[in-house]
Amino acid sequence: VNVLVVSAHPVTESYTNHVRDRAVAALRARGHEVRVTDLYADGFEARLSLAERLGHHDGPAGRTVVAGYAADLRWARALVLVYPTWWSGPPAIVKGWIDRVWVEGVAYTLPEGTTRVRGNLRNVRRLVVVSSHGSSWWVNAVEGQVGRLLVMRAMRVLCHPLARRRWLAIYDMDRATDADRARFVARVERAVVRL
Amino acid sequence: VNVLVVSAHPVTESYTNHVRDRAVAALRARGHEVRVTDLYADGFEARLSLAERLGHHDGPAGRTVVAGYAADLRWARALVLVYPTWWSGPPAIVKGWIDRVWVEGVAYTLPEGTTRVRGNLRNVRRLVVVSSHGSSWWVNAVEGQVGRLLVMRAMRVLCHPLARRRWLAIYDMDRATDADRARFVARVERAVVRL
Repeated sequence: VNVLVVSAHPVTESYTNHVRDRAVAALRARGHEVRVTDLYADGFEARLSLAERLGHHDGPAGRTVVAGYAADLRWARALVLVYPTWWSGPPAIVKGWIDRVWVEGVAYTLPEGTTRVRGNLRNVRRLVVVSSHGSSWWVNAVEGQVGRLLVMRAMRVLCHPLARRRWLAIYDMDRATDADRARFVARVERAVVRL
Repeated sequence: VNVLVVSAHPVTESYTNHVRDRAVAALRARGHEVRVTDLYADGFEARLSLAERLGHHDGPAGRTVVAGYAADLRWARALVLVYPTWWSGPPAIVKGWIDRVWVEGVAYTLPEGTTRVRGNLRNVRRLVVVSSHGSSWWVNAVEGQVGRLLVMRAMRVLCHPLARRRWLAIYDMDRATDADRARFVARVERAVVRL
């Protein structure tokens, strides 16, 4: 199965990247075809540009910068996002990947004469998010987990109608022990290969 | 009253910027002191950097790039955010402003020996968000409005305990008439000056 893993953390040796590497290794050990996008390593530009905004309805043809990212998205049968939760949502660089790559002609179409978006990522049959929360405080402050809603509802509706979703999170990272962290990695390894 | 207006749209002649300009004019006409931050015009970098992440707990001292933005935040008695809603939340550049400027030592402190964050923006007594939604589709797809939760809960708790909040949104922008747009501008002008 084709699996696209998209990760983001500014620190190369971060726990986020460690979890990603273990997830990728687990997927490859099962024989899956895995493409890995590390947004920070790529120097991915988070800001939707003026040109992109003006060419909003032109489809991906003119967007050479994001064309490769869009091709990966259309190729994937499973999508795995790995990022730290900041401000109860994905880091700006991940939001930028969504703003810039999940565009009309890639993630959805807007058929002529309608105002209702049609999902274009029927190839994606599984959506997994792996995220860490720095402190349990955020969870208390922001009931409902904003980032979870974004990915699990807004993105999900553009995928295959029967696409399954899985949300894997480790909380209170500042107080997590090595054992807690190792347990979470094992949980991710088990969950991610269930395609 | 000191009012900080933060706006973001890649297109200079956008409706977002028009609404912002009218809000700023209305505030100044009432004699308020207004500082305007246009994140796109500033070329604001959305991505939290490696150095910023590693210096996470050092406070704003070493963060010369965002020090000016942080000073504006500490100066403001009212905060007005103006941005289009993309993917049911703020554009990446606004998320980056939150990730990078609302940091420890600016927006909150983490007192020694505790894991509970303490809000540091008691100066902010009013929080207003003005946003446009491209289509009513998102509203249907994403019950609950993700971006609203982010700003209204996560950011609000760091402001003055009695800070008031106001959410002003125009929906279904793709079908909005000139009259709809003008009506929304008038609504924003009336609401924003109530400090």
